[in-house]
Amino acid sequence: MAGNSFGILFRVTTWGESHGKAMGVIIDGCPPGVEISEDEIQKELERRRPGKINLTSPRRERDRVEILSGVFEGKTTGTPISMIIRNEDIDSTPYEGIKNIYRPGHADFTYQAKYGIRDYRGGGRASARETVSRVAAGAIAKKILKEKKIDIVAYTVELGGIKVEKIDLSEIEENWLRCPDALTAKKMEERIEEVRSKGDTLGGIVEILVRGSPPGLGEPVFDKLEADLGKALLSIGAIRGVEFGAGFRLARMLGCESNDPISPEGFLKNDSGGILGGISNGEDIIIRVAVKPIPSIKLEQKTIDVSNKPVSFQIKGRHDVCAIPRINFVCEAMVAIVIVDHLLRQRALEGWR
Amino acid sequence: MAGNSFGILFRVTTWGESHGKAMGVIIDGCPPGVEISEDEIQKELERRRPGKINLTSPRRERDRVEILSGVFEGKTTGTPISMIIRNEDIDSTPYEGIKNIYRPGHADFTYQAKYGIRDYRGGGRASARETVSRVAAGAIAKKILKEKKIDIVAYTVELGGIKVEKIDLSEIEENWLRCPDALTAKKMEERIEEVRSKGDTLGGIVEILVRGSPPGLGEPVFDKLEADLGKALLSIGAIRGVEFGAGFRLARMLGCESNDPISPEGFLKNDSGGILGGISNGEDIIIRVAVKPIPSIKLEQKTIDVSNKPVSFQIKGRHDVCAIPRINFVCEAMVAIVIVDHLLRQRALEGWR
Amino acid sequence: MAGNSFGILFRVTTWGESHGKAMGVIIDGCPPGVEISEDEIQKELERRRPGKINLTSPRRERDRVEILSGVFEGKTTGTPISMIIRNEDIDSTPYEGIKNIYRPGHADFTYQAKYGIRDYRGGGRASARETVSRVAAGAIAKKILKEKKIDIVAYTVELGGIKVEKIDLSEIEENWLRCPDALTAKKMEERIEEVRSKGDTLGGIVEILVRGSPPGLGEPVFDKLEADLGKALLSIGAIRGVEFGAGFRLARMLGCESNDPISPEGFLKNDSGGILGGISNGEDIIIRVAVKPIPSIKLEQKTIDVSNKPVSFQIKGRHDVCAIPRINFVCEAMVAIVIVDHLLRQRALEGWR
Amino acid sequence: MAGNSFGILFRVTTWGESHGKAMGVIIDGCPPGVEISEDEIQKELERRRPGKINLTSPRRERDRVEILSGVFEGKTTGTPISMIIRNEDIDSTPYEGIKNIYRPGHADFTYQAKYGIRDYRGGGRASARETVSRVAAGAIAKKILKEKKIDIVAYTVELGGIKVEKIDLSEIEENWLRCPDALTAKKMEERIEEVRSKGDTLGGIVEILVRGSPPGLGEPVFDKLEADLGKALLSIGAIRGVEFGAGFRLARMLGCESNDPISPEGFLKNDSGGILGGISNGEDIIIRVAVKPIPSIKLEQKTIDVSNKPVSFQIKGRHDVCAIPRINFVCEAMVAIVIVDHLLRQRALEGWR
Repeated sequence: MAGNSFGILFRVTTWGESHGKAMGVIIDGCPPGVEISEDEIQKELERRRPGKINLTSPRRERDRVEILSGVFEGKTTGTPISMIIRNEDIDSTPYEGIKNIYRPGHADFTYQAKYGIRDYRGGGRASARETVSRVAAGAIAKKILKEKKIDIVAYTVELGGIKVEKIDLSEIEENWLRCPDALTAKKMEERIEEVRSKGDTLGGIVEILVRGSPPGLGEPVFDKLEADLGKALLSIGAIRGVEFGAGFRLARMLGCESNDPISPEGFLKNDSGGILGGISNGEDIIIRVAVKPIPSIKLEQKTIDVSNKPVSFQIKGRHDVCAIPRINFVCEAMVAIVIVDHLLRQRALEGWR
Repeated sequence: MAGNSFGILFRVTTWGESHGKAMGVIIDGCPPGVEISEDEIQKELERRRPGKINLTSPRRERDRVEILSGVFEGKTTGTPISMIIRNEDIDSTPYEGIKNIYRPGHADFTYQAKYGIRDYRGGGRASARETVSRVAAGAIAKKILKEKKIDIVAYTVELGGIKVEKIDLSEIEENWLRCPDALTAKKMEERIEEVRSKGDTLGGIVEILVRGSPPGLGEPVFDKLEADLGKALLSIGAIRGVEFGAGFRLARMLGCESNDPISPEGFLKNDSGGILGGISNGEDIIIRVAVKPIPSIKLEQKTIDVSNKPVSFQIKGRHDVCAIPRINFVCEAMVAIVIVDHLLRQRALEGWR
Repeated sequence: MAGNSFGILFRVTTWGESHGKAMGVIIDGCPPGVEISEDEIQKELERRRPGKINLTSPRRERDRVEILSGVFEGKTTGTPISMIIRNEDIDSTPYEGIKNIYRPGHADFTYQAKYGIRDYRGGGRASARETVSRVAAGAIAKKILKEKKIDIVAYTVELGGIKVEKIDLSEIEENWLRCPDALTAKKMEERIEEVRSKGDTLGGIVEILVRGSPPGLGEPVFDKLEADLGKALLSIGAIRGVEFGAGFRLARMLGCESNDPISPEGFLKNDSGGILGGISNGEDIIIRVAVKPIPSIKLEQKTIDVSNKPVSFQIKGRHDVCAIPRINFVCEAMVAIVIVDHLLRQRALEGWR
Repeated sequence: MAGNSFGILFRVTTWGESHGKAMGVIIDGCPPGVEISEDEIQKELERRRPGKINLTSPRRERDRVEILSGVFEGKTTGTPISMIIRNEDIDSTPYEGIKNIYRPGHADFTYQAKYGIRDYRGGGRASARETVSRVAAGAIAKKILKEKKIDIVAYTVELGGIKVEKIDLSEIEENWLRCPDALTAKKMEERIEEVRSKGDTLGGIVEILVRGSPPGLGEPVFDKLEADLGKALLSIGAIRGVEFGAGFRLARMLGCESNDPISPEGFLKNDSGGILGGISNGEDIIIRVAVKPIPSIKLEQKTIDVSNKPVSFQIKGRHDVCAIPRINFVCEAMVAIVIVDHLLRQRALEGWR
């Protein structure tokens, strides 16, 4: 219960430091008989990989996933699935110079405060690289959901202050920013290029859509579906806010506007984002998250060192300009893990009707 | 693990239906030796009580809390603290007419889908009345925090589209809306009155401030402090969004703007909201939540009944116009519970240095 | 996670001190639609009640159970079931004289060491009275099992050194000691009477039989069925040992003797006690527990007081001579809770075939 | 929560199949700053290794442990410690012939019943080889306990019906059976040789002693120290019974005999085995477990195949004659894990005095 596990019945535990030997993940509670291969998981990891040179991190992570247990003759057996991704192509040299410095926006200061010791290389455990483990686990969760005809997709609805003007899901895979509005994607890309040239970084907003979810998922009171989804997404380092359905806009609506009327054919609109009273209602589940700019900027910054002395410094090394679009796949993975977990929890309940 | 418990070491379990015999809560893991009395808890319950007639719910909940265990000679003993609040002044008659109807914006439809059975009276388990149990538990959490000089306060920063122009904490207790801007409070009150007269309802935004938190609280990866706080707050029925520090505004900032520089005297600004890498940094923790309008409007609404036939109906009975300010105390309670839980978790760790 | 909850999907939390206001229990995760009434639960409590005057405790616990939530129109709703049993007929006077004394065999010393504070009246939280909450929860678990044609029965196979010579389940209800051998029951009763007259107490061995369990219950590795059953039973105060199937006798067998051969009609014998590799095999589950003598003897004893000074003292008040047969019902309750929990866990898994 | 994790604050998760790629373990919640090296862990693994040719399994498991995360510059960092032991020297050929057969005494039948699929090679997940992961985790737990001057030792008190006549801890390391009575060890060894020559197997009894435990460990009610220790030990495949202190002998004692009198210098005897009311009292903790014979005998056995047809068969391949003494190290490991977990839990509590 030291924070590296998530889920009740479909339980994911990740481990690994950015510049340690490997990253890995255990899934305990995966149902037996699910067909899965390293290739399928690898495909999800490739999607997450730093892609466009100059735009995102040039580190060439080979990220070869290896399944070490829990799969026999191509199928899950119900026992723990252990996956490992060796850390290759590591250069810790850039971190030697800043090992005694608390980088602003990073977890250096807080890890030191918490543990009195930290692996400073590449951010250690706090590195975004930890999410490779989540994506690997998410790949299996997605495979399970696919069998249940549940589909999860994350896309970029705002980047560097530029908002989409439409949401056309067919355009998402057409641009590397995963923007459902191809024209806006162009503008976002220009904005990234502009900011990159100054050594600065950007944030944005990602929307996650769950289609095909049955009604009944989510537990009342504390494990409401949005509470567990919110926790899952807020556990991703760069995410600083989350909202469901109309979200913060609901705060400005009247009750007569915010309520979604119900007809025999279903809900007539979906400002609730597919969740009522913490339980899915069968409509699309809609979530948006706020992604902060990557803290590793190349500009000079003021901070302190471990002896509490003020220092000025500049970050070197390889860094993305924006967590988007890579974070989109992490969002998909985390949402998939939550949905599978709640499907299993509901399954336990339904048997008793 | 059916969703009615929260926390790891300071673990809160609530029970009770709105029109059942009673509401209650168990705290398992409260440290021994904390001085606590029914009066102190009662005081917190009074704050949450429907106050102004016509503005908030006229139901006269007496809400007398009774401590049944875990406290001996005025001090906690380390054993489970059980508290009960009997449901009095209940009139289930208004619900007889709508027991076969799924009210829009409520959990009627989803509870039926999940369980195949539901207590329709007063919303049953999904009623906001459940939060009285949380406030009782929160009163004890706050008492513990007080000993540690940690203080939590929730206030209204937006209501019905009207935003505060300043945040002056000294004005919060001066108006019943808990608005840190007395002038704006007046306008909010007028807005409530206007909407109430039409039988409609309103939402708003609440900010929660934690002062005095030590650095080091929160676990890395999944149990990040903001993840647990986010889950805690999103588990409150009316809340549809949550953000930390500059929150969604961070999505529009550059990295050079969003990073909080550090000086020997502390952080030079606080856009991170007091949490870095999921761990508190010793600055104020700042959270904002979006509160949707109360779904029980008095206007005619379209929905379906349990046999999937379309119906028009009007809600009767006693209802608040806005979940604010009552929800503020629930927010304070949930945040207090999370902070105590993480203090205990950190305590287990620190002994080993 | 402070030790007052048990189970994963069918989760039981008990609270209450022996001489506090009440005892109680919450069940979170009870499937919806189970018919249950206070009368059915009361019946189980009556079985546990001190029965024969002079032989077991004369305290006239009325033990009226009240269901406060989670049951609507006679059926469980899937929400937490809260039950309360008020402590009546309490006389704490006998404890005033020994409040500064650590009674041998009791938890006085260890609670003080752990918490630095304790409710000394009637043993406080460590009292056997806590088990009334377990029996109430067990009554609901048994009701669920009954629907699944699973039956649990506990009986006395040894008492004060006197062993049964046969096991005839039809004789259990015929004698108040729940002995499956009526003739031996007589001897046990004489032994109790003899020991009682000297102010001393006795122990014994209880066997618990689960009939009708399907194969497949239990999780591999740590949550093996016998591991969870063992924990459940060892959590009962007076129990100091537990064994499954042939138990300690297996330590003296050869492999060719201990293995249970399998035929198309089932296992040809059952020395494994119905569990292989931690998972039920469909045969009867057989468990035996060692029950220590009740520590509250009326003879003079040596101990220390809270200031570490040696004292001689005699216990007054009302006490049983032997935890048997009352503990039998507690054993049944705990086993029922474990089986229901694992049925639900297996249910979650099976849906995916 | 699918059974492959153990502990609350010091949480151990194991994975791996006997003939899969590797075995492994994650420790989440290890305190930071503990000095640990692969060599120290390797030493514990060597102790567990099959040693004497002909007596125990001839499989030459090299069992090289690799630490993949959580340790930086020789010290734990507080983040998850991942350890892996590759499976080498594997020959699955002997299992091809019995892959459709349910071996008596093994988990073949029950895994098939539970999951509908199983890795039949070497027993898959149900293999005793899984315990190598526990021993690796236990090595770190022991290191932590060593800093706290707490010592755990397991030794053989009975084997094949031969009991020790004395317990002299200094003799344990002098014979490979870990018998605290060197003369009896000789007889046990002869017994093993005799049974081995017939292709049969043996069981025995192991005692585990914890010295130096502070009072106050263990939680009341369900997480009593003996309940958690009992679960930990019963989760080891071959163990079919567990008892504390005088254990089953207590069932035959009078209260005046079983109670341990207390003096200013401590308890005057220790029939309680160092635990009262579920909480340690500062005396030695004494536990005994019943170890069943290894089910893989070389004699002909009757069973069924997957199509429910009767078959006669003989097990081939490499197998131990007795789980003792290898299981002793697994017992030590599991007890160490429980004690560390409860030390951390108590630590969280004590900070509040």
